[in-house]
Amino acid sequence: MKIAVIGAGAMGSIYGGHLSLKNEVYLVDTNQTVVDIINEKGLILEEDGKQNIYHPKAVVDTSGLGEMDLIILFVKALFSRAALSGNKCLIGPDTYVMTLQNGSGHEDILAEFVDKEHILIGTTEDQGTVLGTAHVRHGGEGNTNLGMITEDKTGILPKIKEIFDSCGFKMKLHENIQQLIWNKLFTNISLSAVTAVLQVKMGYIASDEHAFAMAGMLLHEAVETAHALGLSADEKELLEKVKKTSENVPEGITSICADLGKGRKTEVDTISGSVIRAAKKAGVSVPCHEFLVHMVHSMENRS
Amino acid sequence: MKIAVIGAGAMGSIYGGHLSLKNEVYLVDTNQTVVDIINEKGLILEEDGKQNIYHPKAVVDTSGLGEMDLIILFVKALFSRAALSGNKCLIGPDTYVMTLQNGSGHEDILAEFVDKEHILIGTTEDQGTVLGTAHVRHGGEGNTNLGMITEDKTGILPKIKEIFDSCGFKMKLHENIQQLIWNKLFTNISLSAVTAVLQVKMGYIASDEHAFAMAGMLLHEAVETAHALGLSADEKELLEKVKKTSENVPEGITSICADLGKGRKTEVDTISGSVIRAAKKAGVSVPCHEFLVHMVHSMENRS
Repeated sequence: MKIAVIGAGAMGSIYGGHLSLKNEVYLVDTNQTVVDIINEKGLILEEDGKQNIYHPKAVVDTSGLGEMDLIILFVKALFSRAALSGNKCLIGPDTYVMTLQNGSGHEDILAEFVDKEHILIGTTEDQGTVLGTAHVRHGGEGNTNLGMITEDKTGILPKIKEIFDSCGFKMKLHENIQQLIWNKLFTNISLSAVTAVLQVKMGYIASDEHAFAMAGMLLHEAVETAHALGLSADEKELLEKVKKTSENVPEGITSICADLGKGRKTEVDTISGSVIRAAKKAGVSVPCHEFLVHMVHSMENRS
Repeated sequence: MKIAVIGAGAMGSIYGGHLSLKNEVYLVDTNQTVVDIINEKGLILEEDGKQNIYHPKAVVDTSGLGEMDLIILFVKALFSRAALSGNKCLIGPDTYVMTLQNGSGHEDILAEFVDKEHILIGTTEDQGTVLGTAHVRHGGEGNTNLGMITEDKTGILPKIKEIFDSCGFKMKLHENIQQLIWNKLFTNISLSAVTAVLQVKMGYIASDEHAFAMAGMLLHEAVETAHALGLSADEKELLEKVKKTSENVPEGITSICADLGKGRKTEVDTISGSVIRAAKKAGVSVPCHEFLVHMVHSMENRS
């Protein structure tokens, strides 16, 4: 398969590297230094205590590469539209575009570039950390969950699964992928932005009644939104899961919390913001999410 | 008049001091040192560049003082119930109880101790700063606004006005005192807790679109609550006032912001919390207020 992975961050490197074992892979990034080093020395992934070197072809400029069979988007969701827009030449009538990005609703941006039958959405349980230029730690291997927003009439999903599995991933196909995406989102929206504005570790949420009440209000709004979208969500069960996640990883620092603490722009629009966008479509009111997203942005602007 | 002023903080000292010029005033406080110094050396108020010394009688224990004509509550609203409860011996069938405390809804606690016809509520535009023990700066003299939650059948308001005016205050009587209290509250709830959680100066609210959006969401909820209570509130006009207040005092630090910054317990329950209590009564939903009050408490608990 001819595959373009856009974004050579931690996750893009992991997927681009592995898929390059058996496919024609182009790893696309705007950073010329990263691209040069990957092409000269290869991409180093630290996996199971070993250093594995992969050789996807890295590029900044994609003109002339022709249309891809598959494009996987691994930029920050904030840059999804720009990334696809700047690499339109890769998209033909038969090109599938895949997103495994955090948050929900990414299919709306993808739909601006391909028809709905060519959109693949999902989540990844693999974890990556950038250790240096073209040097990534690949940890916490899990499932890559994938599905479509339409019926899979052409049988693309099993084909994709075969390719990914043969390159070392564990792909799980889902008929109701939105449900899976939201299952991941519920915990994320209840913990991420709250730990960020409070600047606390994950464990604080379960330990402080007021922080937990904030998480509960956010979860409630997300559950109402999910219900309006036709998804199932048991608020009581989910709240228990939020509590457990907080208790099980007490020293955990969410990425929004870390970014905000360092005065960087956060991905709050991708996570909490996606609930706001979904709620708007579904006609649900989510004032706490709106208030909180404003707060995170206001804190970003403060520094 | 036989008057007990409960709470020898800045405002209690100003009112207790002045009223002692022509009345039998007992300044009640739990701090024995403050009480002793006032009784030994008097109470010093810095006013118009002069040091004026006043001699109210200060007490910790009020038993034996008998029933008062008037009790003025100047403790932090958090301690209102305890303060009245601990000094019940001062309250007889003819005792009026007055609150000029920040926030709204204090009459609910007062009503646990006297009937509604003996409750006097209002606001003060005078300002006080504690400079040392029994030593207070009295600045920003303005009106003392007063009214009742029932009709003034006995003509107590004009009597009180005469007494206060003769002791150096400028009292203004209001038929619709709740409207006045809420007029003050609208700006307060839009600025105080927001500057607190963001840990910013007043000017930031007007200068940052997201901070201003937060203020706007809070104001909207307060306006809906006020309307449900039968009060008038022009949201557009009030939002303009919030903006102007932020712009006119850019370096201002709200008391909730200062308290939170220093890891102290704040008065958020008195200010934003009073909107929540009023909304509950009126059947209005104020999620942003609830979320924000939880957040302030969670930040208090963090330290």
